[in-house]
Amino acid sequence: MKLIKKITPIEENFSQWFIDVITNGNLIEYGPLKGTVIFKPNSYGIWEQIQYNLNKIIKKEGVRNVYLPLLMPKSLIQKEKEHVDGFAPELATVTKVGDKKLNEEIYIRPTSEVLFAQLFKSEINSYNDLPKLFNQWANVVRWEKTTNPFLRTSEFLWQEGHTSHSTEEEAVNFSEKMIQVYKNFYKDYLALDVVIGKKTEREKFAGAITTWTIEAMMKDGKSLQAATSHYLGQNFSKMFNISFKNENNQLINVYQTSWGLSTRSIGAIIMAHGDNRGIVIPPKIAPIQVDLIEVLANKDKNVITMANQLKKELEENGIRVRVDKSDKTIGFKAAQSEIEGVPIRIEIGPRDIENQQVLIVRRDTIYKALVNIDKVVIEVKKLLESIHNDLFEKSRKLIKENIIYCNSYGKFKELIKEQKFVVVPIIEDSKELENKIKEETTATARCIPTELDLCLKEDKCIMTGKLVNHFVLFAKAY
Amino acid sequence: MKLIKKITPIEENFSQWFIDVITNGNLIEYGPLKGTVIFKPNSYGIWEQIQYNLNKIIKKEGVRNVYLPLLMPKSLIQKEKEHVDGFAPELATVTKVGDKKLNEEIYIRPTSEVLFAQLFKSEINSYNDLPKLFNQWANVVRWEKTTNPFLRTSEFLWQEGHTSHSTEEEAVNFSEKMIQVYKNFYKDYLALDVVIGKKTEREKFAGAITTWTIEAMMKDGKSLQAATSHYLGQNFSKMFNISFKNENNQLINVYQTSWGLSTRSIGAIIMAHGDNRGIVIPPKIAPIQVDLIEVLANKDKNVITMANQLKKELEENGIRVRVDKSDKTIGFKAAQSEIEGVPIRIEIGPRDIENQQVLIVRRDTIYKALVNIDKVVIEVKKLLESIHNDLFEKSRKLIKENIIYCNSYGKFKELIKEQKFVVVPIIEDSKELENKIKEETTATARCIPTELDLCLKEDKCIMTGKLVNHFVLFAKAY
Repeated sequence: MKLIKKITPIEENFSQWFIDVITNGNLIEYGPLKGTVIFKPNSYGIWEQIQYNLNKIIKKEGVRNVYLPLLMPKSLIQKEKEHVDGFAPELATVTKVGDKKLNEEIYIRPTSEVLFAQLFKSEINSYNDLPKLFNQWANVVRWEKTTNPFLRTSEFLWQEGHTSHSTEEEAVNFSEKMIQVYKNFYKDYLALDVVIGKKTEREKFAGAITTWTIEAMMKDGKSLQAATSHYLGQNFSKMFNISFKNENNQLINVYQTSWGLSTRSIGAIIMAHGDNRGIVIPPKIAPIQVDLIEVLANKDKNVITMANQLKKELEENGIRVRVDKSDKTIGFKAAQSEIEGVPIRIEIGPRDIENQQVLIVRRDTIYKALVNIDKVVIEVKKLLESIHNDLFEKSRKLIKENIIYCNSYGKFKELIKEQKFVVVPIIEDSKELENKIKEETTATARCIPTELDLCLKEDKCIMTGKLVNHFVLFAKAY
Repeated sequence: MKLIKKITPIEENFSQWFIDVITNGNLIEYGPLKGTVIFKPNSYGIWEQIQYNLNKIIKKEGVRNVYLPLLMPKSLIQKEKEHVDGFAPELATVTKVGDKKLNEEIYIRPTSEVLFAQLFKSEINSYNDLPKLFNQWANVVRWEKTTNPFLRTSEFLWQEGHTSHSTEEEAVNFSEKMIQVYKNFYKDYLALDVVIGKKTEREKFAGAITTWTIEAMMKDGKSLQAATSHYLGQNFSKMFNISFKNENNQLINVYQTSWGLSTRSIGAIIMAHGDNRGIVIPPKIAPIQVDLIEVLANKDKNVITMANQLKKELEENGIRVRVDKSDKTIGFKAAQSEIEGVPIRIEIGPRDIENQQVLIVRRDTIYKALVNIDKVVIEVKKLLESIHNDLFEKSRKLIKENIIYCNSYGKFKELIKEQKFVVVPIIEDSKELENKIKEETTATARCIPTELDLCLKEDKCIMTGKLVNHFVLFAKAY
């Protein structure tokens, strides 16, 4: 029997708290290589729920799932220069099979634009074949220097959508639609509010014309890029000759998008909803929604019967239930349920049988209530809904209270130190200024927000003093 | 618009037929590296259905899904000598990241026994923690010399289950239970009959004590290993120190199993059910179960309305439907539906509106019938059931008629030439004899069948003449 270690308080040391909850919450085990992790049942279970629900949504958009190879020859990725430059230092390179040296080096995919290029090339001939909307669920490898479970791992899991369209307008619209899909998905399933916007030139995806992003706020005030959607223009289609004949028989290169959401989203959930008892999983994507705990002082048969009956009823109502049958103590089971973030815990003891009631505990608020046995299903359904809504409301409030407009660099530096989201007027071509800001404050340009109402019409650039109507959200980020 | 190429008749050239149907059936595109393939929507769709259904079954057995790293350090796999020897020549080896040479070589997983060892080690302390039943859906890489889409690719997708138990008996039973699960899964979802048995010493998994297999018969008579389940004993638990304290506080190494089913299963479906019109997908795992084809000579609005109505009704009954809205001809759409193996095709034309009926075509038999519009849902449900049962019956019959008992090596060689499944009496320790047989006939020992009634009580070994009660199924195999 494993003991639960003490969790470092969130206010005391946020990164230690994170490590404590993920290693005790049945979420991860470190892998044998630096920067790799094992997704244990609780975190992989969240990922399965994300997959299941996001899949339904993107399939409704007409997207079809495919699977492309893990490995690509060096020559393939080198065709798109900006793209390969962006990924080169992180590419895991296969040079041998068994004892045999390969003629050409092979890369493990860091993303699959160049592989999809091949599929599009063979699938597209005429306007009749467009649009082509594909997606794959896959693992990718980016060997980064600094790693952090869920947030930045050498290997991660994601979905990557790749689409080809006959016009620029359609592709642009599709890339914008997908970032809205992600924003809604975070709201409706992960109970997280996000800031939506475009990446600056410095921050955009290597090979994209426009990168859309959603940025979520963690409990320490830092930003986490929660998903991205890229408009790729004809960058890849020109390099890889992906073209179609239009109605006038002219040969035209397709316009493309790509968009992805990864296992980072699990990190977002943990850091945005967790507390000093452990993680808090939003009900809709919780692998287990209800923990049924039997209080079995005297191995009371009636308690077991009632628990089984309740499990059956809840499951018939589509609720995911776990009964821990081990001989661990109630206290241990309750603590384990809390650290693992199970939305609702129900305790059933011999006295409850007499009174025809059970104790229901909400994970997010630890609010406890005795509920009549006949009302449990209705109450659980209501609570799952409330927990979701309350978690989202808290997330919305956190951003609202910690996003600040500022037009002085002095004040900006203070706010960044306080780990706020800071929106500033800044000149449009700000690559060098962003470098300077990062060096002096560690903050980075998260996005050019497109849906915030706190920007003025125009204001003086915090770095150059020039009058601008261009605003960027800066923050420290994961 | 892509044209469908002529399919080589199955009787004329089986391997060319296979290539023709997979490249025209929306199944694969070759990847940029030798031995890699792109799973297009039709084949990945089959895999999604297999995942969805098999997941439900293995979760009912108490198995929980996890995800382990793709990459492992060389030193890790080298701990189990027999295991690494089995895989060494096929291991894709990462030696560099970007331009930097790594200190230790890294392998891409060919299977994950040694990675799961680490998870078990950290999860298991006492008998209270056992059994531990894990599974992962993942890609693995085995760089084989001869490759063939679906059947033998450098990278393939699979599920690999890994379990730890407190007793030998429990682990042995679990490994046997899982091969039965696979056998039933092939019957209930893939409509395929299989031969169940143990692998001989020569053929068993590197590191296993016993390897159970199910072998399916392809239409050319060759055998395809359809899934395996291994009893690993304490081979890995001793090497990796995976142990638990039993009730008497004694430290004992766990007993383990592993079991897997891969994208080869898609190859099995194609080669066992396909015909000269293309592939035939068993209804339960068909990504699209019904193709609705509008006969739109005059762009008749009533036809579109009726097709939409029918689509809605079928989907409300849980049936997966596709409507091809392109302006391709009826003939093209029908041929495409057939080559892609969609179980049922429904054609709706203006005259059908008048008569309140539609034309329903079964893919497996090309049997056509006019059905009253009110009866379509019931008829489709009945047909899907019939198609499944008939496909299974054909598969059962194919094996029954082509599996032959034989006790003379001369006759054996003839039967193997005719691509039969041949069961022979042979001495138990037959490694060298198997080498000889393979050299002389290209047939390999598929399994020691455990559920066949055609073996005698004892008979003379076909190679040594000794009286034995040990029988092995030989066949040419993929």
